[in-house]
Amino acid sequence: MSSTWGRNIKISIFGQSHSAAVGIVIDGFPAGFKVDMKALADFMRRRSPGRNRLSTSRRESDEIEFVSGLVGDTLCGVPLCALIKNIDVRPGDYTELYDLPRPGHADYTAAVKFGGHQDASGGGHFSGRLTAPLCVAGGICIQILAARKIYIASHIEKIAGISDKRFDPVTLSANDFMNLTHEPLTVIDPEAGARMVKEIEAARADGDSVGGVVECAVIGLPAGAGSPMFEGMENKISSLVFGIPAVKGIEFGSGFDCANLRGSENNDPFIISEDGLVRTKTNNHGGILGGITTGMPLIFRVAIKPTPSIAKPQQTVSLSERRPKELRITGRHDPCIVPRALPAIEAAAALAVCDSLLTNN
Amino acid sequence: MSSTWGRNIKISIFGQSHSAAVGIVIDGFPAGFKVDMKALADFMRRRSPGRNRLSTSRRESDEIEFVSGLVGDTLCGVPLCALIKNIDVRPGDYTELYDLPRPGHADYTAAVKFGGHQDASGGGHFSGRLTAPLCVAGGICIQILAARKIYIASHIEKIAGISDKRFDPVTLSANDFMNLTHEPLTVIDPEAGARMVKEIEAARADGDSVGGVVECAVIGLPAGAGSPMFEGMENKISSLVFGIPAVKGIEFGSGFDCANLRGSENNDPFIISEDGLVRTKTNNHGGILGGITTGMPLIFRVAIKPTPSIAKPQQTVSLSERRPKELRITGRHDPCIVPRALPAIEAAAALAVCDSLLTNN
Amino acid sequence: MSSTWGRNIKISIFGQSHSAAVGIVIDGFPAGFKVDMKALADFMRRRSPGRNRLSTSRRESDEIEFVSGLVGDTLCGVPLCALIKNIDVRPGDYTELYDLPRPGHADYTAAVKFGGHQDASGGGHFSGRLTAPLCVAGGICIQILAARKIYIASHIEKIAGISDKRFDPVTLSANDFMNLTHEPLTVIDPEAGARMVKEIEAARADGDSVGGVVECAVIGLPAGAGSPMFEGMENKISSLVFGIPAVKGIEFGSGFDCANLRGSENNDPFIISEDGLVRTKTNNHGGILGGITTGMPLIFRVAIKPTPSIAKPQQTVSLSERRPKELRITGRHDPCIVPRALPAIEAAAALAVCDSLLTNN
Amino acid sequence: MSSTWGRNIKISIFGQSHSAAVGIVIDGFPAGFKVDMKALADFMRRRSPGRNRLSTSRRESDEIEFVSGLVGDTLCGVPLCALIKNIDVRPGDYTELYDLPRPGHADYTAAVKFGGHQDASGGGHFSGRLTAPLCVAGGICIQILAARKIYIASHIEKIAGISDKRFDPVTLSANDFMNLTHEPLTVIDPEAGARMVKEIEAARADGDSVGGVVECAVIGLPAGAGSPMFEGMENKISSLVFGIPAVKGIEFGSGFDCANLRGSENNDPFIISEDGLVRTKTNNHGGILGGITTGMPLIFRVAIKPTPSIAKPQQTVSLSERRPKELRITGRHDPCIVPRALPAIEAAAALAVCDSLLTNN
Repeated sequence: MSSTWGRNIKISIFGQSHSAAVGIVIDGFPAGFKVDMKALADFMRRRSPGRNRLSTSRRESDEIEFVSGLVGDTLCGVPLCALIKNIDVRPGDYTELYDLPRPGHADYTAAVKFGGHQDASGGGHFSGRLTAPLCVAGGICIQILAARKIYIASHIEKIAGISDKRFDPVTLSANDFMNLTHEPLTVIDPEAGARMVKEIEAARADGDSVGGVVECAVIGLPAGAGSPMFEGMENKISSLVFGIPAVKGIEFGSGFDCANLRGSENNDPFIISEDGLVRTKTNNHGGILGGITTGMPLIFRVAIKPTPSIAKPQQTVSLSERRPKELRITGRHDPCIVPRALPAIEAAAALAVCDSLLTNN
Repeated sequence: MSSTWGRNIKISIFGQSHSAAVGIVIDGFPAGFKVDMKALADFMRRRSPGRNRLSTSRRESDEIEFVSGLVGDTLCGVPLCALIKNIDVRPGDYTELYDLPRPGHADYTAAVKFGGHQDASGGGHFSGRLTAPLCVAGGICIQILAARKIYIASHIEKIAGISDKRFDPVTLSANDFMNLTHEPLTVIDPEAGARMVKEIEAARADGDSVGGVVECAVIGLPAGAGSPMFEGMENKISSLVFGIPAVKGIEFGSGFDCANLRGSENNDPFIISEDGLVRTKTNNHGGILGGITTGMPLIFRVAIKPTPSIAKPQQTVSLSERRPKELRITGRHDPCIVPRALPAIEAAAALAVCDSLLTNN
Repeated sequence: MSSTWGRNIKISIFGQSHSAAVGIVIDGFPAGFKVDMKALADFMRRRSPGRNRLSTSRRESDEIEFVSGLVGDTLCGVPLCALIKNIDVRPGDYTELYDLPRPGHADYTAAVKFGGHQDASGGGHFSGRLTAPLCVAGGICIQILAARKIYIASHIEKIAGISDKRFDPVTLSANDFMNLTHEPLTVIDPEAGARMVKEIEAARADGDSVGGVVECAVIGLPAGAGSPMFEGMENKISSLVFGIPAVKGIEFGSGFDCANLRGSENNDPFIISEDGLVRTKTNNHGGILGGITTGMPLIFRVAIKPTPSIAKPQQTVSLSERRPKELRITGRHDPCIVPRALPAIEAAAALAVCDSLLTNN
Repeated sequence: MSSTWGRNIKISIFGQSHSAAVGIVIDGFPAGFKVDMKALADFMRRRSPGRNRLSTSRRESDEIEFVSGLVGDTLCGVPLCALIKNIDVRPGDYTELYDLPRPGHADYTAAVKFGGHQDASGGGHFSGRLTAPLCVAGGICIQILAARKIYIASHIEKIAGISDKRFDPVTLSANDFMNLTHEPLTVIDPEAGARMVKEIEAARADGDSVGGVVECAVIGLPAGAGSPMFEGMENKISSLVFGIPAVKGIEFGSGFDCANLRGSENNDPFIISEDGLVRTKTNNHGGILGGITTGMPLIFRVAIKPTPSIAKPQQTVSLSERRPKELRITGRHDPCIVPRALPAIEAAAALAVCDSLLTNN
């Protein structure tokens, strides 16, 4: 049991890669908020495959069918259910996965956990496809936050060892978000993006894949959101982000670099801003102290492993015969899922922030 | 609201640095398990300050008073409450914190969140002292797991830029845990430990502090523990670990390094072990695929920032006067809290594993 | 926020009376259990209207569309989503409800809670229609329990002041469940049933409605299921049962009658049964002591108010004009919802029992 | 696992009848609220035994030790922990309970659930003593609500078949609460109280006990508090109330009587009050429609079974020998626990209301 999350915005995600649909129930949205359906569809499109030559050729309709929770386009206060139909389904691609687990995938662990009764087609409930319903929730949360002048954006900080610039954690503004380059990759520095593209292409040519890091930021947050200990902003964000397939690490502010710093370097001195607000001079704390926002930009980075589905032959085992087998994966797969992970990570951030700002009574 | 966690082992942590006691209620422990009180006290002692010259001179009794949940030393199935009295309390050290928030601490965020009504003494509920009750829960979980031949250990992977060796993620055994050096620091390579000590001493001499990274491993886990999406092992561990003050990052297996690897390098081929078990040849996945254990060692690393309380003068602001102030912190503080963080991180791992293995009916 | 429930079997119910569908997500069902779809459809049919002249003429298809969670008819361990389309929808029947709240309905409270943004059509999320998804979950739970030889049944204990016999709380067996009369009403004593029908017909003829009491029993339960305090069997069952519209009371065992008994009468002496089991001689405790099952039949009764939608003119107010109005409800409504409440109450009992018997790891 | 409850006010109750203490952790109280310690002690005293000749002679100190969560007497926003020491403990009274379960008690079910490892002394965690920590939480909630002009009171509606008057559900006011008689019993009609006392005395003389019904009301509630389905006011109140030992039934408004009424009688017509508010002419709905408050008095009644511990010899079984035994209970026990249940039921109501009115962010 696992696919529910949240205290004030409670989500329940369902569906398998090749079931009739994937979807989500969201309980706790504020009544009376009008959803911008066009903006939501645009947000969903960023996650969709098939947009350009860098991603899988599987055509996925990410069109949302709203089952409940709306009167017209306005949230009516009761649970919203959204479906995204699975079309272009080819279950035949996957039948051998019950016996030959793919390295780096959950085929083996699902088989053990569910006693062989798992839906193995396309990874079942473990598929990256399940980030689509997460994006429905997050996409609406982003709109709710924008109405409060809280904005979220992310960019590719690294792919295949090539680094983009980072957000400036002190001066970061909505303008910086506007100035991001989006084609062919979402980056601050287009030149770095161009080099990333070359690495992705090279990996694809080799029947291989590459991983990366995404940097995400939330600006406009008031100070005082979050909680001590287990419902802090870091806890909430990480408990969502690790629900996105392929995520293997997360860090806030200076993160792992703080192991190389002294306290006098890592501490962020408090200052009074020109408009009389309490701010910090630097932002190694990533906008969070004691689990609670300081009002500085909230910044975190997420490590995403290389797509485990690669064309190259790989070594696996036959679960039934208990002996080695060579595996050749023939389906359609992205050589790099980092670009498509961006909206999912923004969605996770938006959900965590809404869950910390909204109330349930 | 924040200080409760868990589904099958539910914990509720309470207390402030200078309240009568800190403590914990644990609901869900199995009836009939006999706690080894001596081993638990030994575990607690690893967290205690004042053991050697590297830590604060504040004397903290980490002696546990059990209020409920036991018949003799045996768990009786109903909630266990444990208290750890706060002695050697000097609230006078902290009175100015209501007005002059310490950089890198939660003083400011607590003041905003609780409208000035927070208990600021010694950081209140945000103090590192709150890891003591976490260690009570984790220390008992470690015993419950050991009875199932599941073992947990950690070492300092880095301090002040100096790196220890890492656990071998494939061959790691209980023997490796036995062979860790513990004095003056818990490391694999004593020579690295000696260099870390020098850096800590140097920082102390400068009125400064240093941060680091802890590597933690769980061995003996069965395959199939955990869940997809939001209650996976990574989600559970990270949601606890970010409840430990000063933690700013976590990564599993190859973690952030996977951004530099190709799929063919990062994927771990499945093999059949000599005793006929499904294993992997490498362990970049850190023992977790799809949130569920593979049976390989579960390995994660945690970034810990330099102790924010430093003797050096720092820049802060007066919240009442809305203007800059210089802050001099005069209390007793560790120049490096990494060594004392080890049992807390092991406790978090043990709790997450127990919550995934035990049941509540 | 409200429409989720459960610890080991977690349900999330969504939908409004006149939304595209009502439905449910169920997280925690055991992988590998094969659902008997025919038996489930039969169970759903008991809740459906239009079966006989005693219920509303609205035609509701309670046909279930499974979106996820199954491979064929077998549960695959991940969340099951089921939809029940809303057909025969006539939203025009309800437009005035935004201004003229129906006595005994949630129209007014929903308007206040959701600030006028509620979906008022047919009662929206507060409609009795929402018991259909509850019955999907409960219907599957009933099958899971039957495989463990745990059986659930209910009958109409009272309608309009006319009482059926009660279950014998000591000797109750599966045979007694088989021997219930189902047409036109589910009762033990058909003669009482016939008199109830007359009262229902009389109420209908008067444009009025009647209420009643349902008695529900679970047999075959092992001793030891449940928990002390807030997750006891009584707490779990009642927290579900009050989610069924029109329920206004619940009692276990001797219930409110115990106020008329002495301890020596109400206490149930322990005995050893012929086959060596611990049993009780009487069963005033209704199979539950300290929130935990004793192994005796679990018995409870639920009070259900008369259908608030009646044809008779009623007094209400215009919310916009703040003045009295007469209300004439013209839709299609049951003169007595008690017969259709039976499967919903059995579903609640089955869910509570499964949540107490199954585990989530 | 069981002894935690709540969403916005989360409580975790611990302790056994003869452990060092019983207590509670409360997470979610609003920072800055000053607790009236004298009023809280007065509230606790209503639950204490030994106040008069009608209750057990066991002397229980219900003096509260606050461990955390306060600065002075003011809530500081983090978890409050309160202990109530167990004094006058005589574990020797109870040793045989491991083998000879008391009829009507949880001795047998605890033995099964906890595999013989339960703390049987005085009923352990199942003891009525555990209502003391519930009263700490509820007593503070009552003060928080009173500051919002929301008031709670209860009276004994029935003991041993003798009925008090009921609260007038429409006109009920704080004055009616003031006018309750408290000595020797809390009733509206002192003459009924006197007859109840006679019945209690007669039961005691016979080595027996009597049960009863408590009626509780909340006035001053705004309309719109609560939620549909599973977190409605009825669900919340009942999930708490069934955590109070000996409770076997609950009903709201007209409750079980509605089975004798027609819709035209049971529906409460809406009216506009003299001060322009929406009210109802009658209050059969008990102040709740669709789980949400209407602003009318919230009224419920709770059935409490006769004290199961009676002096009369009773029939039980030896669990070890699997054969019948006669049991003679020699401890100190109330012939009627109904009077002491009043503050616990008010506490449950206050907690449920606070959980529905307060927020956790």
